[in-house]
Parts: sequence; C-alpha cells; structure tokens
Amino acid sequence: MDKNEYAIQKHKEWHGKIEITARAPIETREELAVAYTPGVAAPCLEIEKDESLAYEYTRKGNLVAVITDGTAVLGLGDIGPSAAMPVMEGKCAIFKRFADIDAFPICIDSKDPEVIIETIKNISKSFGGINLEDISAPRCFEIEQALIEQCDIPVFHDDQHGTAIIASAGLLNAMRFTGRSMGSAKIVINGAGAAGISIAKLMLKMGFGDITMCDSHGIVYDGNPRNNEAKAEIAKVTNKENKQGTLADAVRGADVFLGVSAPGVLTQDMVKTMAEDPIIFAMANPVPEIMPDEAKAAGAAVVGTGRSDFPNQINNALCFPGIFRGALDARASRITENMKIAASHAIASVISDDELSADYIIPDAFNPEVTKAVAKAVADVAVKDGLSRL
Amino acid sequence: MDKNEYAIQKHKEWHGKIEITARAPIETREELAVAYTPGVAAPCLEIEKDESLAYEYTRKGNLVAVITDGTAVLGLGDIGPSAAMPVMEGKCAIFKRFADIDAFPICIDSKDPEVIIETIKNISKSFGGINLEDISAPRCFEIEQALIEQCDIPVFHDDQHGTAIIASAGLLNAMRFTGRSMGSAKIVINGAGAAGISIAKLMLKMGFGDITMCDSHGIVYDGNPRNNEAKAEIAKVTNKENKQGTLADAVRGADVFLGVSAPGVLTQDMVKTMAEDPIIFAMANPVPEIMPDEAKAAGAAVVGTGRSDFPNQINNALCFPGIFRGALDARASRITENMKIAASHAIASVISDDELSADYIIPDAFNPEVTKAVAKAVADVAVKDGLSRL
Repeated sequence: MDKNEYAIQKHKEWHGKIEITARAPIETREELAVAYTPGVAAPCLEIEKDESLAYEYTRKGNLVAVITDGTAVLGLGDIGPSAAMPVMEGKCAIFKRFADIDAFPICIDSKDPEVIIETIKNISKSFGGINLEDISAPRCFEIEQALIEQCDIPVFHDDQHGTAIIASAGLLNAMRFTGRSMGSAKIVINGAGAAGISIAKLMLKMGFGDITMCDSHGIVYDGNPRNNEAKAEIAKVTNKENKQGTLADAVRGADVFLGVSAPGVLTQDMVKTMAEDPIIFAMANPVPEIMPDEAKAAGAAVVGTGRSDFPNQINNALCFPGIFRGALDARASRITENMKIAASHAIASVISDDELSADYIIPDAFNPEVTKAVAKAVADVAVKDGLSRL
Repeated sequence: MDKNEYAIQKHKEWHGKIEITARAPIETREELAVAYTPGVAAPCLEIEKDESLAYEYTRKGNLVAVITDGTAVLGLGDIGPSAAMPVMEGKCAIFKRFADIDAFPICIDSKDPEVIIETIKNISKSFGGINLEDISAPRCFEIEQALIEQCDIPVFHDDQHGTAIIASAGLLNAMRFTGRSMGSAKIVINGAGAAGISIAKLMLKMGFGDITMCDSHGIVYDGNPRNNEAKAEIAKVTNKENKQGTLADAVRGADVFLGVSAPGVLTQDMVKTMAEDPIIFAMANPVPEIMPDEAKAAGAAVVGTGRSDFPNQINNALCFPGIFRGALDARASRITENMKIAASHAIASVISDDELSADYIIPDAFNPEVTKAVAKAVADVAVKDGLSRL
C-alpha cells in the first residue's frame, strides 16, 4: 500500500480526527437537572451579570477555533472548505496532543474577506482564541488585522506568525552554532507571500539587521511598480542597498538563505557563491528549494527543511500550541509582537550550547519542554505588558 | 448549600461541560505525518473531487452544531450569547450521552435574523446537522426556514419541534390510556409562541382533529387584528367554530389542556369545567400552569409537566438525540414532517399497553430504548421518502 492509500485508510478508520466528549456526568435525573435545566440557569445568570465568568463556568478559556476558508491549504491551494477539513482536524488534534487545548475546526464557505471577517466575529464569543489557517495572501493580512481589532480574544494566523517564530528560533540557533551576529549577518528570504513577509517583519523586530527579500521575479525593491501593498511596505525596511536583480544576485555573499517558495529554486552553484559556512532553511513543502544533501555538498554549514524525514524540521507544531497555551493561561486579550519574540527565544533556548550541532538546531516536535517553555514565555510577557486579564 | 450555589460550584469544577479530544494518535513523527502533513493531503484531494467523502474522512457525519443567539434562553429570556453558553454546552453533553453525537455549541453575537442566517450558512459545511436553540419567536421561524432552504444538511429548531414531538407522543399515550380518539378529542393549547404553534401544526398533521389555541389575550381566532403572521396562519386551521373568549371559555368542555405559557394560569375551577377525566400537560418551566396535585384534585386523569420531580416529564431529551441520530445515520438532507410524526409515534410506542398508567404515559429520559426507537423510525422514513443520501 502506498503512502497516500495508507493515509486514506487511516482517515477512514478514524472517521474524524476529533471528537466531542462530555465533562459533566449525566447518568441520573439529578445530574441532568444540574448540567441542564433547571440547574444551568444559575451559572447563566452569573455570566449575564459578569461576562468574564464565561471563563470559569464554560469551556471558553480552553477553547480555540481553527478556522479556514480553504483557499491556501498546505501546498494544495484553493481546495475549498470541505476538502480543507482533514487539515483543520489534524491541527485540532495537535493542539490537544501538545498543549491540552480544545480546538474546534470550522471551514467557512465564502472567499469574500468581508464575509469571513463578519462570520468569525459573530461566533467569536464562543471561543477563547482564534487560529486562522490556510487563508491565501494578501486576503489573510486584511482578515487577521480586522479580527484582531474587532475581537477581544487572541487572533493568530499561524501560517504567517507560527512559521516566522519557528524560522527565527532556528536562525537564532544556527547563528549561535556558526558564530554569527544578528545585526550584521546578511539574510535572503525567498518568497514574499504571507509567510515570507511575516518572517521578515518578525526578524526585523527581533534585531536581525540585514534582510533582503526575493519573489519569483527577483529581489523585492522599493519603487518596483509590481509591488502590492504588502511588498511595498516590506521593501522600505529591507534591501538596504536597494539592489535589483535575480535570486542569484541576492544570495551572492549572503550568510543565510530562507526559502518559503518553490521546489529546487536554489542551486548548488548559488550556494557556492554565498558566504563561508552558509545557513540554508529550505522550507518549501514537500519538495524543498534545495535538497539537504545537495546544500551540504555545496558547502552549507546548517540545513533546515519543513520535512520530518530530515534533521532540523521547521515545524509549526513547535510553536502554535505553546503560543495559545500561554495566551489562554494568561487570559491575554491578544498575541503581540513581544509575545512572538519571546516564543522564538524560548524555542531556541530549549537546546543548550552543549547540545547544539549542525543537525540539532531546532528541537524535536515531541520534546515536551518546547510547548512548556513557549507557553511560559508568552504568559510572562502578557503579564509584564499588562495584557493578562486574570 | 442551596441548589443554585451547588449548580455554580459544579460548573466551576467541570470548567466546561464539553471537551474536544483527538481520535487520531499523534505519538510519533510517523503518526504526525499521517494525521497531518504530508499524509493528510490525500484525503483532502479525494474530498475535493467528491464532497460526500467528507462524511467518510472527517467527523462531519457525526457532528451537530448547537446554535443560539441567546435571545430566548430557557425561561430566562434574552441573556445574550455568552450567558447562553452553559445551556448550549449542557445540550451538547446530552447529545453525547444519549445518542453518541458530537455536538458543538456556538453562540452568535447578533440579533439580526439576516446576519444569523448568513453566519450559520457560512459555517454549515463543517457539520452534519444544525440544532437551533433558544431563539426568540417569531424570528426563529424565519431563521429556521431560510436555513432549511439554503443548507444541504438537517436544520431543526428544537424548541419548536422537539417540544411538539414529545408533547404529541405524550398525548398519544394519554388518549390511549383514557380511551379517547385523536379525531374528536377537544384540545386547547395555551401559549401561541414558537412551541405552541409548532405543537398545533404537528398535531394537526398527525390527525388530532379539534384544536383551539389561546394566547395571553384569550382564544386565537381568524380575523383578529392583533394576529401576527404565525397566529393568522394557525387561526385558519384551528378553532373550528371560530370562537372568541377567554382561556376559561376555551377549556370549558375540552378533553385536553396543553400549556406552554405561564405559571398558574390554569385554575382548579377551570379544570372542573373540562370534560370528564381530562388530560393536563402543564409545561411552563419551572412553575407549571397548574401544579400536578391541584390538577388531580380537580379531576384530571393524566398530568404531565416539564419537570423532572413529577411523573410524565415532557422532556426534549427524549426526542432531539434520536431525531439527529436517525437523520445522521441515514445521511438525510433534512428533517421532514413525516420524520417528526414517526418520532412521536416511536416515543409513544416504547410504553406497552400493559405498562401504561396515569403516571407513566411518557418514557423516562434514561430509558435507552427511546433514542434507539426514534433514530430507527427517523432513518426508516428518510429511506422510504428518498431523502437518505447513503
């Protein structure tokens, strides 16, 4: 049986990767009368008087909605809300496994950002947080921004920020390993979609000083008439020398290549033109921008990919469970840049100097310390920055 | 500790009456790679080709959304979406307990029927069915009707139809016990809100022949300028003699009083004017239209209430779990009048002639035969009427 057949067979067996169970016993009339009418009236009336008690008397405080419109699902593209559901259920199962968060998948049957924003806002009071997922760029920026403004719970587009946090964490450690400094290392990010732009923004805030972005047409520069709003904005704060040119031009002399782009676009010849002992994160999935063995043969000191079958997997599962765990634990009203930065450092710090090696710059997804460290870092920042509502 | 304090303490302990658990194991990288990327891509692509496979590869086929806007919660009225959540969670726990259905509570933060319809429609593809709950009349009629037309899954407003089905089932048995005939027994329904009108409509379709409705102003009659749309419609098919008058006028000589109205509105004097051995269902909650002992002292042969501390509890939990179980089992596209009628007869038939008594005309909510019988009846009708999509 090939891998696809096996995955389909397992999905048939599971018949859904999540399930909803009852926490309240309902085995007698008396129990029914407490969990439902007439007993349930008392907590209802308390919440009516003080809405924050919803966090005490209902599941809200541990509940995250995983929401998509099915427009940018994995590498599959716009496959629609029904076909996106297996991914959302998988994400919910990961939330439970890694952070004991109750996550519920919702696929919205509209591609209109206004409709999506309105729909999510209308149901948001039922949840303690909202994880946006697999929504295509640039719509995802508008949708996330509007929801952050309109909801009083954390809203987090994982494809943007989760990827940025874990890529940054990996880069922190890769620089620690190769003895580079954040401020001066030359970084090229290839791919100027949601993930690429979010990586650049977070890294700039973290103190990575020299970033150049490329898209499929080459170096992103200020004043390029092809720039959309997001690229125009990022062009102003990256590419310090305002270079124009190809990806090959961009990577010449660079210390770091971060790809969130397309299979095979980084050649061995390009790697050979980079600075000595370069760092390569080739995150295109499932086929990376360059295969790890090729990158190493061309001189790369550290290689990371999005795949679980190579070392240094840049895997969002290291990040989003802990981010939401921390935000829920602190009852934070939103997830801020400070929290994302703290999460990135927390992930990096799980690996000690002694443990650090070329093949171990990113912790394993199943290392239980990771979610714990991220959750604590995020909750601490929430408290410090006055965003905890406990 | 009084009952309210106890209920609040239990709700605090439970910290939510539902929980979301993972059905797919995620203990190794290999398992993660099947439940999530890259394995999950295969079932996604199959569903993209054939949307009905969502019933095979995701939880959709066992998943019901329990949705309210918080406008008519129990007897508490318009307490809003957050305060309504404990009731919705309780309902979801009952779905699981009685029918092994995964039910998820959603409280919508809008009172605009158009917004509510749109919001529910936009998320409906994630579910196998929609249970509307505690939405005020007459908005609930418009909302349910629009969703039935626009969604391809069963949509069921339990406050209307669940109550109608179980009240009808009780009345079938009360008539069996007192030797009355459906066609000729004189029935008075007091309360012309969502539940009262739905009871009247279902009973007419079932063959109960002589129904008169009352509201707080007295008998509902055709041509009354006070009639709203729903009352105008029901006035045309009830109150055959087109009587006008008070509730007291209506019940004089009647065989049956069904109350979905207000505490204490049926007096012993009124009961004494009814036909011999009258049937009284006093369903106002928590204080019925007349207390059972008073009704019996005034001559009632059978008394039912909405309360669990008296015999003959007219309890929706006897109905909605089986209705949805049957509809999901048959993958029915909607829940029809025929299914509701079959559900009512199924509930009644759980009690044999030998078992039937004045205090046992409605089965106990914990009798496992009830949900089984209702589910089978509903699924059978779905198949017979060509509405099963299996």
